[in-house]
Amino acid sequence: MPRVSQDHLDARRRQILDGARSCFARHGYEGATVRRLEEATGLSRGAIFHHFRDKESLFLALAEDDVLRMTEVVAQQGLVQVMRELLSTPAGGDGDSPADWLGTRLEVSRRLRTDPEFRARWAERSEQLTIATRERLLRQRQAGNLRDDVDVTVLTAFLELVLEGLVSHLAMGLPADDLDPVLDLVEETVRRHRRTT
Amino acid sequence: MPRVSQDHLDARRRQILDGARSCFARHGYEGATVRRLEEATGLSRGAIFHHFRDKESLFLALAEDDVLRMTEVVAQQGLVQVMRELLSTPAGGDGDSPADWLGTRLEVSRRLRTDPEFRARWAERSEQLTIATRERLLRQRQAGNLRDDVDVTVLTAFLELVLEGLVSHLAMGLPADDLDPVLDLVEETVRRHRRTT
Repeated sequence: MPRVSQDHLDARRRQILDGARSCFARHGYEGATVRRLEEATGLSRGAIFHHFRDKESLFLALAEDDVLRMTEVVAQQGLVQVMRELLSTPAGGDGDSPADWLGTRLEVSRRLRTDPEFRARWAERSEQLTIATRERLLRQRQAGNLRDDVDVTVLTAFLELVLEGLVSHLAMGLPADDLDPVLDLVEETVRRHRRTT
Repeated sequence: MPRVSQDHLDARRRQILDGARSCFARHGYEGATVRRLEEATGLSRGAIFHHFRDKESLFLALAEDDVLRMTEVVAQQGLVQVMRELLSTPAGGDGDSPADWLGTRLEVSRRLRTDPEFRARWAERSEQLTIATRERLLRQRQAGNLRDDVDVTVLTAFLELVLEGLVSHLAMGLPADDLDPVLDLVEETVRRHRRTT
């Protein structure tokens, strides 16, 4: 019954990713030891590394998973919505929450700073988010919702820069309860203006 | 001759700060050992720690120095100009350059993430930049240069979020040569709009 086997493998893979996500978010990349990964996933190291070659591959799979989910939110609701979801979830959330996205994304940011090899492996993955953001903006422009006096490339880079600032802000534990109107302003900045002064 | 003595002390203090700045920028906080600080400043550890109680105090003095200089730029030319200066200087610059501000600021960001005690000591210092930004915006509003449909507090938080994103972007070694038009957009966002669509 190869079909059942495949389902089983997928479920197991999912179980590992979910456990590992909390583990990386809580302890950071270096702090997520194999023993802690075993505890967090409820599986033996043998089972974990049957599915993922090593810790680096496991982390990259997670980060890639997050980019994929962010990409889906971006495609439907835009990058500002990704930011709103980051804001709306209290830090230290558990499981499949934006707070865990944040944990993974912080680790990505940190390793991008310190690990040139990781930077190279990550570049192509992060590009997916840029592409999704750009495509969403192009569709919005076609629908007449986007300002047309600024290049879409510039608007994309603008939104990504604000996202990076938000991740950094949250990572530093700075107060975030006053940032909703800032995101309103960011959203308004890329939209078609009807205001006159 | 107490006057000469004071000048001498001030010059010595400046010599230590300048050397230490490059040293922290190059090696990070942990990597800036006492031996490396001696090499970078050309002074003995005895001389260095005559002026600063410990490495932490030296680092805070540096960071405070940077905030003061950023605050001066902000008062005269605004926070976007601070960002433009960060962009215009190649990484790894030496001496009194924005690249060294960036190095110190990155260390501040990193330690804010990982060191709650440092976060408390830093909070009051970083507030100076927020105050200067806010005051600059208020003056711009009085001069009729600022949009008046968004609260100055929101505009201040917006500019600070973009600055944080820029610092993070540069820290990750991502390409920055396409960011000038993004900063134009940021600047335009806080200004009075005359466009109609």
